[in-house]
Amino acid sequence: MIVGVIGLGLIGGSMAIDLRRRGFAERVLGVESDPVAASAAMKIGLADEVVDYERCIRESDIVVVAVPVGTAVRMVGDILDRFRDEGSKDKIVIDTCSTKEQIALATHYHACRGQFVSTHPMAGTEYSGPWAAMPGLFDGRACIFADSAESSPKALKTIEDLYGVLNMRPIYMDASSHDVHTAYVSHISHVTSFALALTVLDKEKDEKHIFDLASGGFSSTVRLAKSNADMWVPILSQNRDNVLRVIDTYIEKMGLFRKAIADFDEDGIRSLIEEANRIKKIIR
Amino acid sequence: MIVGVIGLGLIGGSMAIDLRRRGFAERVLGVESDPVAASAAMKIGLADEVVDYERCIRESDIVVVAVPVGTAVRMVGDILDRFRDEGSKDKIVIDTCSTKEQIALATHYHACRGQFVSTHPMAGTEYSGPWAAMPGLFDGRACIFADSAESSPKALKTIEDLYGVLNMRPIYMDASSHDVHTAYVSHISHVTSFALALTVLDKEKDEKHIFDLASGGFSSTVRLAKSNADMWVPILSQNRDNVLRVIDTYIEKMGLFRKAIADFDEDGIRSLIEEANRIKKIIR
Repeated sequence: MIVGVIGLGLIGGSMAIDLRRRGFAERVLGVESDPVAASAAMKIGLADEVVDYERCIRESDIVVVAVPVGTAVRMVGDILDRFRDEGSKDKIVIDTCSTKEQIALATHYHACRGQFVSTHPMAGTEYSGPWAAMPGLFDGRACIFADSAESSPKALKTIEDLYGVLNMRPIYMDASSHDVHTAYVSHISHVTSFALALTVLDKEKDEKHIFDLASGGFSSTVRLAKSNADMWVPILSQNRDNVLRVIDTYIEKMGLFRKAIADFDEDGIRSLIEEANRIKKIIR
Repeated sequence: MIVGVIGLGLIGGSMAIDLRRRGFAERVLGVESDPVAASAAMKIGLADEVVDYERCIRESDIVVVAVPVGTAVRMVGDILDRFRDEGSKDKIVIDTCSTKEQIALATHYHACRGQFVSTHPMAGTEYSGPWAAMPGLFDGRACIFADSAESSPKALKTIEDLYGVLNMRPIYMDASSHDVHTAYVSHISHVTSFALALTVLDKEKDEKHIFDLASGGFSSTVRLAKSNADMWVPILSQNRDNVLRVIDTYIEKMGLFRKAIADFDEDGIRSLIEEANRIKKIIR
């Protein structure tokens, strides 16, 4: 099997490593538009060859689109067009995006929709680029298959095998549920970290030594604020309505804390904290 | 040197372990008001003996007050009274609290103020109780000495030695600066985590499987929401004014994100994220 990976960053690069090491891919063809990243990817050995976009689609059995979601929406449509024009009925394209509804809308009526499998391997770090790629990134994590009934059974089976090789646990749901769920368990965490970083960086303008005091707790809460704008601008923008709804609930909860603290209402603060502590049962 | 530790939880218990292992304390006398925690602390071997409060103060050369800050404010005053009544001029009491201004106010005019050293060893985890105590908790972290000029030079030197044995890096500042700084780099992180947990737990009422999708990023951002109410209610309440000021800045930053997302302003989202990314230079 020849696997083409478009975007040799954290996700694409890590998939390339394990798909080849574990024997699923005989050969990995990489596409990387940034020349510095492309040459780093070759040095690191993420792909057997870095090729142009057209050649990647022509020669690969499976094309993995691992680029930011704004670009991915247009690219998956274009790849399906090329499959149709080539008359390739067995080739498959998958995306790995963190939002699923817009890509679902953009491909729903395509004649080759069956050859597209929409997936979200839920793994990552706050780092990006080929330097961030690592073996084993996906092991034991969840992979969402969105609207899988729209893929052909054969294409779906092949991609389930691919994620099986990556040791991922499949979860099936429709694209719009995916976007609601990820707004709660992923997108909002990024927004709260970005806002925390901005709050503290503002203060640091006057207080040069404030970060001397930053402890492990602060570092862990603010970690996601290192995340890349190229990835997160389109996610927040494509998942706008869900993210806004979650931000509103979040600001409301923050307001409850603010009021209890302002009112010297220690019982109120206590019940909010004890309610929040229920998270212990869920996150180990 | 006999060291008395009042409160054999995460902080007190961890100090007891290393002060004895590393030879600073010949003997550790523990005080623990919760009988279950007291018997666990003895089983784990955190103290040589669990004694009552009066005996601890009578027999210890240094008393470490490692209880929640509301109780600590009253207790440090009481211990200084007992030093005065006993005529003990060489005994020392220290606190380990996360807020410093109220304890400073409460002790400022005490005749034995010189025998009190106000410290905040900035280390911890989201767990609490004697079970959470561990060797090496303080190694390499910062310890704040608040208003250290109010302690006698001899008492200060002894406590600097104590934290030297724990491998902590001393930082000196006045109590009110301490409380401003910790509001930014510690207290707000806890409030944002609590609010995040509440937001997602609310949603989980309708969506049973939402946490199947929780990834590493969510877990790290929400980690502090496991923190104990007994510790955090008095911190947020004693540091009310600073914490409210930081919450207001935080809600303002969150509002900027909300507006940029609502307005489809991708350039605006990008500049906020890139500004937040500056945290990379500061937190490794």
